[in-house]
Amino acid sequence: MRAPTRSALPAARPGLPKLLLIALHLLLSAATECSGPPTRVSVFGHKIPDTDAICSAMAYAWELESRGIPASAFRLGELNRETEYVLRTLNLETPPLLESVSAGDPVAVVDTNNPKELPDGMDRAVVHSIVDHHKLSGLITREPLEVDMRALCSTGSILYARAKAAGRTPPPHVAGLMLSCILSDSLVFRSPTTTALDRQFAEELALISGLEMQKHGDAMLDAKADIGHLSAKELIMMDSKVYTIGGLNMRISVLETTRPGAALAKRAALQDAMRQTAQEQGLDEVLLFVVDVLDESATFVSSSTRSAEMVGRAWGSAVGRSGTAKLPGVLSRKKQIVPALEAAADVAAERAEPAGSRRVQPAQMPRAAV
Amino acid sequence: MRAPTRSALPAARPGLPKLLLIALHLLLSAATECSGPPTRVSVFGHKIPDTDAICSAMAYAWELESRGIPASAFRLGELNRETEYVLRTLNLETPPLLESVSAGDPVAVVDTNNPKELPDGMDRAVVHSIVDHHKLSGLITREPLEVDMRALCSTGSILYARAKAAGRTPPPHVAGLMLSCILSDSLVFRSPTTTALDRQFAEELALISGLEMQKHGDAMLDAKADIGHLSAKELIMMDSKVYTIGGLNMRISVLETTRPGAALAKRAALQDAMRQTAQEQGLDEVLLFVVDVLDESATFVSSSTRSAEMVGRAWGSAVGRSGTAKLPGVLSRKKQIVPALEAAADVAAERAEPAGSRRVQPAQMPRAAV
Repeated sequence: MRAPTRSALPAARPGLPKLLLIALHLLLSAATECSGPPTRVSVFGHKIPDTDAICSAMAYAWELESRGIPASAFRLGELNRETEYVLRTLNLETPPLLESVSAGDPVAVVDTNNPKELPDGMDRAVVHSIVDHHKLSGLITREPLEVDMRALCSTGSILYARAKAAGRTPPPHVAGLMLSCILSDSLVFRSPTTTALDRQFAEELALISGLEMQKHGDAMLDAKADIGHLSAKELIMMDSKVYTIGGLNMRISVLETTRPGAALAKRAALQDAMRQTAQEQGLDEVLLFVVDVLDESATFVSSSTRSAEMVGRAWGSAVGRSGTAKLPGVLSRKKQIVPALEAAADVAAERAEPAGSRRVQPAQMPRAAV
Repeated sequence: MRAPTRSALPAARPGLPKLLLIALHLLLSAATECSGPPTRVSVFGHKIPDTDAICSAMAYAWELESRGIPASAFRLGELNRETEYVLRTLNLETPPLLESVSAGDPVAVVDTNNPKELPDGMDRAVVHSIVDHHKLSGLITREPLEVDMRALCSTGSILYARAKAAGRTPPPHVAGLMLSCILSDSLVFRSPTTTALDRQFAEELALISGLEMQKHGDAMLDAKADIGHLSAKELIMMDSKVYTIGGLNMRISVLETTRPGAALAKRAALQDAMRQTAQEQGLDEVLLFVVDVLDESATFVSSSTRSAEMVGRAWGSAVGRSGTAKLPGVLSRKKQIVPALEAAADVAAERAEPAGSRRVQPAQMPRAAV
């Protein structure tokens, strides 16, 4: 409701320039009240997009159109090989690049609600809605909006749950997009973020889309493992988020791959890129975890003594001379890496505090799947 | 997931105090993994609660319990007379007062997502879910959660929509709570925040609850008009939010009443309280609008020359010697007061900028009701 209503028009002490402005406002006000063609909503996910960010933007644009709201999907950066493979397989075009958002532009956001992962100008956009599966990260909007966040493994899962609840069956290509979101974010059901509902949805979506689920998932992982075209800096930044843990600002980067050897062969270049990135971005640390999807383990790559100590405390795995440490069973930044680093930082903080000054953590509460 | 997993335990260089801490963490970890009685979720709305904050907390606690999640409603402050009337009519007890939130406490929030309106310690709580109808206001949570925000007139409307979608019919007293939320926030359908869906829901909820809708709504408004027990400061703070408009930090207070005369008779005391509040809270201005619900108008009460000028620019209504200005048709802070003040501030800013340097606002986008 940025355009003024008629009653909101200034009228006191009119001069000529003011009258012109009033006329402009009257015109805008009239335009708002007329039923001209509605403005298209631009739908996008986060910067440095992954498969969930791209495919759920496309699936949500389909939902909005189905609801009578004109919408178009966009990307905020280059596609990774996995996403390229998905769109090629589904015979869909790559969404156009969105460079920035202008004041008053109607937008819808998927797979993030983090202001740092959104385009410039978001603070002046009109946010129509957000569909996401991350924690709340401090976004401020100008107006009330529709927000649907759930603790499912991918935004694709939430979009399919919404379609089911509304009695809308997605067409095969949209089901394929939703399925690809689930397979990507769950690492084909290996990640501990996977819920029973995600698995059930994936099976239903495979039937609707006509895709062979396991084969499609494996091919996606294979496509993603092709990193030959990426620089060390690009590998560090590809799937990376900044956290504050134990008072330190750290970037935690994850590289999910079926061929960890290809990344670890570039260890020295990666370590240089990590140190450079920390310096350029004013961060205390950059931590890299190369996740071996098939082996279900991670290899930590250290670029500083302090980060090696942090990982040593968190997992009890000493970082060797090569600057790496193997962490069996570690696949998820959200569910494993960040909680383990936080717990280790808490233990370190407890050592500095008198006994009994910290509250005991209550048992975790059950969280309904939907 | 704050409790560490076994693999996250520190093991390097153990000393005796550290071993004790490790033992404690092991115990906590075991407690997390065991299936003991689940922790109750504390459900609450905003500070200085209104009917929507109290009644939707009670209705959401019912929803959570229906979903197998033990939950209890709380209040963050004293009830107003309208809410007291509602609970008395429905024969329900006043929810207990919640003073603060401790680290790790599971909580659910209704009718706000604004960190400033939430209890101390929220940053360390485990937020299970949020149901709200306001704009996003910058909250940061520790973990992914369930968020359901929609542009409906009250949180009660969203909770009823959720119940319907899940095939749950609320029992009569819960339907009465939801109906009271809608009647309160929509000023018995007078406010421009009311949507067609809110009206439809209210009619359905009246049938389920057995309440006579219009009579109940009128009695609620009457109960709220009883302000004799409140100080000028309490009247100012009762329904009040802080905004930044045109570079000024201002508190915009609204007093919705069927008997504006009772409030306006205290004009001088209110003006003193406004000036004092601005000084105490480091604000540029405090603006008070006494909304006459039956006449569908607002009376602005000014406590400074600048605020009188702002309102004059926004509505073209000169503030008289008494420091008040009548604003016909003005009922809603969200839909009318704030947009009009912002538009007037924009016009003032445009006068200071070269012509053509500001983008024209696009026509407003249609927003689907659910």
